[in-house]
Amino acid sequence: MKVSIIMGSVSDYDVMSGAEQILSSFGVEFEKRVISAHRTPEFMYEYMKGARDRGVGVVIAGAGGAAHLAGVAAGLTTLPVIAVPIETKALGGLDSLLSMVQMPSGIPVATVAINGSKNAAILATEILALFNEDLAQKLHDFRKEQADKVLNSKI
Amino acid sequence: MKVSIIMGSVSDYDVMSGAEQILSSFGVEFEKRVISAHRTPEFMYEYMKGARDRGVGVVIAGAGGAAHLAGVAAGLTTLPVIAVPIETKALGGLDSLLSMVQMPSGIPVATVAINGSKNAAILATEILALFNEDLAQKLHDFRKEQADKVLNSKI
Amino acid sequence: MKVSIIMGSVSDYDVMSGAEQILSSFGVEFEKRVISAHRTPEFMYEYMKGARDRGVGVVIAGAGGAAHLAGVAAGLTTLPVIAVPIETKALGGLDSLLSMVQMPSGIPVATVAINGSKNAAILATEILALFNEDLAQKLHDFRKEQADKVLNSKI
Amino acid sequence: MKVSIIMGSVSDYDVMSGAEQILSSFGVEFEKRVISAHRTPEFMYEYMKGARDRGVGVVIAGAGGAAHLAGVAAGLTTLPVIAVPIETKALGGLDSLLSMVQMPSGIPVATVAINGSKNAAILATEILALFNEDLAQKLHDFRKEQADKVLNSKI
Amino acid sequence: MKVSIIMGSVSDYDVMSGAEQILSSFGVEFEKRVISAHRTPEFMYEYMKGARDRGVGVVIAGAGGAAHLAGVAAGLTTLPVIAVPIETKALGGLDSLLSMVQMPSGIPVATVAINGSKNAAILATEILALFNEDLAQKLHDFRKEQADKVLNSKI
Amino acid sequence: MKVSIIMGSVSDYDVMSGAEQILSSFGVEFEKRVISAHRTPEFMYEYMKGARDRGVGVVIAGAGGAAHLAGVAAGLTTLPVIAVPIETKALGGLDSLLSMVQMPSGIPVATVAINGSKNAAILATEILALFNEDLAQKLHDFRKEQADKVLNSKI
Amino acid sequence: MKVSIIMGSVSDYDVMSGAEQILSSFGVEFEKRVISAHRTPEFMYEYMKGARDRGVGVVIAGAGGAAHLAGVAAGLTTLPVIAVPIETKALGGLDSLLSMVQMPSGIPVATVAINGSKNAAILATEILALFNEDLAQKLHDFRKEQADKVLNSKI
Amino acid sequence: MKVSIIMGSVSDYDVMSGAEQILSSFGVEFEKRVISAHRTPEFMYEYMKGARDRGVGVVIAGAGGAAHLAGVAAGLTTLPVIAVPIETKALGGLDSLLSMVQMPSGIPVATVAINGSKNAAILATEILALFNEDLAQKLHDFRKEQADKVLNSKI
Repeated sequence: MKVSIIMGSVSDYDVMSGAEQILSSFGVEFEKRVISAHRTPEFMYEYMKGARDRGVGVVIAGAGGAAHLAGVAAGLTTLPVIAVPIETKALGGLDSLLSMVQMPSGIPVATVAINGSKNAAILATEILALFNEDLAQKLHDFRKEQADKVLNSKI
Repeated sequence: MKVSIIMGSVSDYDVMSGAEQILSSFGVEFEKRVISAHRTPEFMYEYMKGARDRGVGVVIAGAGGAAHLAGVAAGLTTLPVIAVPIETKALGGLDSLLSMVQMPSGIPVATVAINGSKNAAILATEILALFNEDLAQKLHDFRKEQADKVLNSKI
Repeated sequence: MKVSIIMGSVSDYDVMSGAEQILSSFGVEFEKRVISAHRTPEFMYEYMKGARDRGVGVVIAGAGGAAHLAGVAAGLTTLPVIAVPIETKALGGLDSLLSMVQMPSGIPVATVAINGSKNAAILATEILALFNEDLAQKLHDFRKEQADKVLNSKI
Repeated sequence: MKVSIIMGSVSDYDVMSGAEQILSSFGVEFEKRVISAHRTPEFMYEYMKGARDRGVGVVIAGAGGAAHLAGVAAGLTTLPVIAVPIETKALGGLDSLLSMVQMPSGIPVATVAINGSKNAAILATEILALFNEDLAQKLHDFRKEQADKVLNSKI
Repeated sequence: MKVSIIMGSVSDYDVMSGAEQILSSFGVEFEKRVISAHRTPEFMYEYMKGARDRGVGVVIAGAGGAAHLAGVAAGLTTLPVIAVPIETKALGGLDSLLSMVQMPSGIPVATVAINGSKNAAILATEILALFNEDLAQKLHDFRKEQADKVLNSKI
Repeated sequence: MKVSIIMGSVSDYDVMSGAEQILSSFGVEFEKRVISAHRTPEFMYEYMKGARDRGVGVVIAGAGGAAHLAGVAAGLTTLPVIAVPIETKALGGLDSLLSMVQMPSGIPVATVAINGSKNAAILATEILALFNEDLAQKLHDFRKEQADKVLNSKI
Repeated sequence: MKVSIIMGSVSDYDVMSGAEQILSSFGVEFEKRVISAHRTPEFMYEYMKGARDRGVGVVIAGAGGAAHLAGVAAGLTTLPVIAVPIETKALGGLDSLLSMVQMPSGIPVATVAINGSKNAAILATEILALFNEDLAQKLHDFRKEQADKVLNSKI
Repeated sequence: MKVSIIMGSVSDYDVMSGAEQILSSFGVEFEKRVISAHRTPEFMYEYMKGARDRGVGVVIAGAGGAAHLAGVAAGLTTLPVIAVPIETKALGGLDSLLSMVQMPSGIPVATVAINGSKNAAILATEILALFNEDLAQKLHDFRKEQADKVLNSKI
């Protein structure tokens, strides 16, 4: 099973590359794509409807402002969709966050922190690891590394 | 030309009926429909794609929370789309407002006040009145009535 | 029919020139003007009252802070008025947005995103295109270009 | 010199009557009026332009939402204008507050608390008392009463 | 695999029972428990450390205010943790939302809407359904029911 | 009568010098002083209690963060006190604004925009001009200059 | 050593009585008083300056809106001052919170949650318990009770 | 008795070194440590449980975003815990502030201003000074220095 990383515009890749980096480090397969709920509605439809058949297990969607990408994706699949609200210049990403997290009952989206693309990828990995002991072990090791880094911090 | 009033759920009709009331008072033809960007994506697509052929000139979309209805509608048509952010219990509708108004460049949405369904209908009428002298006159009279009401207020 | 682009001060032109650029690209005629609801109330009155006679069909008003320009303009005409909230240094434009979008019942203003001057111009064009097939076709082509740009994005 | 109490709609009188009550208790003369920057722009103009000749020294303006009344009044006079942001159902009056207080440089408005009509009236009295020893004494006594009330509080 | 529903206090059960209801309707096994990151840190530790061995696959954590429950849970397991911000009286749940969603890099939490316990349960089901065709079918049917309900709405 | 400009710390002078500049241009006499409600409570008391005797008619108080300066000053005098909320790095000055404007009933403060020191000075001048025809004329001319500047703006 | 509970007005006692209740349950001596930084500045000064001599070790100050009470108290003593922001009708207490917590460098205030009078009292007790083993034991027992209550919760 | 300064990551030291600096200047003994409620839960537990035995009297905890450090620390000790919300890039630290200050009843945290590490240290000193006359004198002198600095300010 792979992860699908989608984002609303090329400029979101600055943030969303963090997801790619984490998935690569865990050896999780992924596809990535600029796709727009507003500008490419037909392609959005086909892309999401075909996701399961392409072997996608989890979708990570990053967008900013009136960030509809994750919600629209979630309406087109029953795969888990993780939302990354992208920071915005005017409102800091509060607009992106509320546009993503406040989904109506029935169509959930799993929202992480503003610009939290790395956590989105770790969350996707945690999901896939439920049925993949190797991944579970890698996550366990990753946590240990994080802990060691904290424990060895010098200030 | 008629106006299409759409809303994300039946419960939004409490607010959105204000639009209906205004359009009726101006004698503007309209259709109305519960439709969901997330729950009925295929129908959303067909409905919006067929709007122009049904004689729709302006779309009014009301939704609350992560309110994607207006933005998704705007992505499926080049007709003007007016957004009515519906008040929400937890955040007062700030979530609805930001989800609607902060649209990315290229796909505009004309947002009115939280729960401003009446103003949405007046705005739709102003648009149609650009090419309809009778409507323009009615709007003119409506303004005069509003002014008279203010001028005659007793406190 | 032309579009009137007004703004509260010369400094708003940095943002509002985006509207000009879009209208030019669509071949929509426009006038532009610095005008202040507070500093030039008489001129504001005359300018808006004369708008229809000058052939104005849609007004785009950009302002920041306690941004009254669009609302005051809307009180002086029944032409559709589009509001562009300008980003502010202290509050990011939340002040501009709320000052514009939260209009009282009876006097609608069509608000777009903070700094969304381009979308204001596209929206104005969508309105004029309701009765102008050539513009409608241009908007259709513009959407297709936007879609192609997304589809061809490389990340 | 008298105070002019204006408000955007009859419903604002629930709050604004607090100003009337305070001015009456201080024996400050006042006029009161529902007046709308958007619905009655001509009357607004005449009313404000005639204020000084009617003997008005200070203006108190109460409004809610995109509350332009105080700012527009301030643009039409060089008398001091005090703004009372009226609480709103959806956003609690944050919209009213920002629409009033964030005035651009050159046209000041003196904003008090949300629903602070009583303080607006006290402030107006403080201004008039600068040249009225009797009023100054009354304010001094009022402060003493307030202090005594606090000092005698039983909990 | 089962779902663990935890919440910070008994009063959160009013909201969190929504998760229970959804999981029951899908036939997903679950455990539920009041548990506090602050009041019962030792039990919190043991409970989370033992989750995997109890057959837990996904954790749903609901809390309000400075809502640390989900984040602390996520620090004690590599299972996916879903956070439900509970609405608060003073700030509407913005405090709960930000306390949950803004997790630091390395420890993800999947946040849903304020009071979105039902969506948390649907999301948990989507995760478990990745490896359970029966659940996947049930989710598919649930979506169809939701769509039908929208399509048959009368207004 | 003169104006007293006070501010919470030397660093506020960057903003507050705007008030000085305006008052100088109108020929209004003023005193200026760094004074702290928290760090110099005794001096604050004496300074405010002696203000009227020093010929002060209006107080302008600038402060940032938990900005108590204006409110404490207002508690020590019945002269009108104008508050200038200073922009803060973390919250943009929303903290300063709310700390100043939301005064309890009985002790008014006249709040202007974040960093609005110039408007504070114009407001002070408007107050003094109520009984000074020369100042009134200067304000009138200032308005005319502002209008001319807008009318002559080139974009 | 005793605790001094002060509040800005009688109406704050609804919330602040929570502090009294907790201190009573721990057997901590306290005094309580309505006192206003704005309405009774002289008494405020004397009261705070005399606190240490009255045996006060910790001050708890509750106030709402532009809540200056805690900050002004902190400026008049070097005893630790705990601030309780009282919920407000319009802004939920965000105004009270920011007015209390955002104190300038040099004069700290220890802010607890909106309406968190009970936690203020527990915090005061924790401070006094640093040098009082009996109190320390009571706090320990209180924590255990809290834990037991959570552990025995039935849902 | 010493102060324990803890922070969620090395990057927080830029802000938290302010606490160190103040404590050093007062001659208050302290320990400092990077420690994470999420990444090092076991160490967090041991560290806090052993604090009293290490002679710690007050804990200062700085963290940003979903800032759980102070609350989790407070759940593991009955020593007073002071929270320093660290400014965040996207939301300015409003997320950190709410995550820290809005603690549930029973587990208090004493929150200071965003980035207010110096005030945290002064507050800690005020607490320790309750039973240390030398420290009390130093605080008194520090206040006097602050006052003198204000009184001697030149603008």
